[in-house]
Amino acid sequence: MEKVNISEKFEQFSELWSPKIVGELNGQLVKLVKVKGEFVWHHHDAEDELFLVLRGRLDMHLRDGVVPIHEGEFFIIPRGAEHKPVANDETHILLFEPASTLNTGNVRNERTRETLERL
Amino acid sequence: MEKVNISEKFEQFSELWSPKIVGELNGQLVKLVKVKGEFVWHHHDAEDELFLVLRGRLDMHLRDGVVPIHEGEFFIIPRGAEHKPVANDETHILLFEPASTLNTGNVRNERTRETLERL
Repeated sequence: MEKVNISEKFEQFSELWSPKIVGELNGQLVKLVKVKGEFVWHHHDAEDELFLVLRGRLDMHLRDGVVPIHEGEFFIIPRGAEHKPVANDETHILLFEPASTLNTGNVRNERTRETLERL
Repeated sequence: MEKVNISEKFEQFSELWSPKIVGELNGQLVKLVKVKGEFVWHHHDAEDELFLVLRGRLDMHLRDGVVPIHEGEFFIIPRGAEHKPVANDETHILLFEPASTLNTGNVRNERTRETLERL
């Protein structure tokens, strides 16, 4: 049992779009990710996904519009919902999702991270 | 699908030790709680519990010591671990835990909240 200081964890990496595992509970993972630019459209067949913005702004593109998520806000993408995260500036996000979740969901490309580092 | 502004949700209640549900995913709940003073010793037989401190300081009493959890830090209490949350000043916490989690775990007393409000 160890407490986690989120800022200290963010200081340990600079890579974009590469989630790091910082906690695990009940088969779910807590991940931190830095993003900037545009991700790929994808969905997750069996996993709901929580995005909590801790710095910056994440524009969550959905099939019917864009939801801007600011610092101190979170958004839950239900399983099956197509989404594309976009950030104009570097944005820091905490993710909470099942351990089985692949970052690119139903898509596999150069952005896919099969194995995640634990910090 | 709606985004959640955490500060706005905290402004909607003042009651202490009474978690409010603000999100649900994968059978897990996101809850917000305001605490001040001392809670009861308890454990959860089947649920791990994440405490993310957003304001103030939570002193997590464990059988072998006390872990102070500051703003921007989280702590995961594994199932079975006895714990007693204490806060000298009003402290705001985000909880991630299974939907089945009872706030007082194996104990039932005046602090127990069988049904939680959704904000």
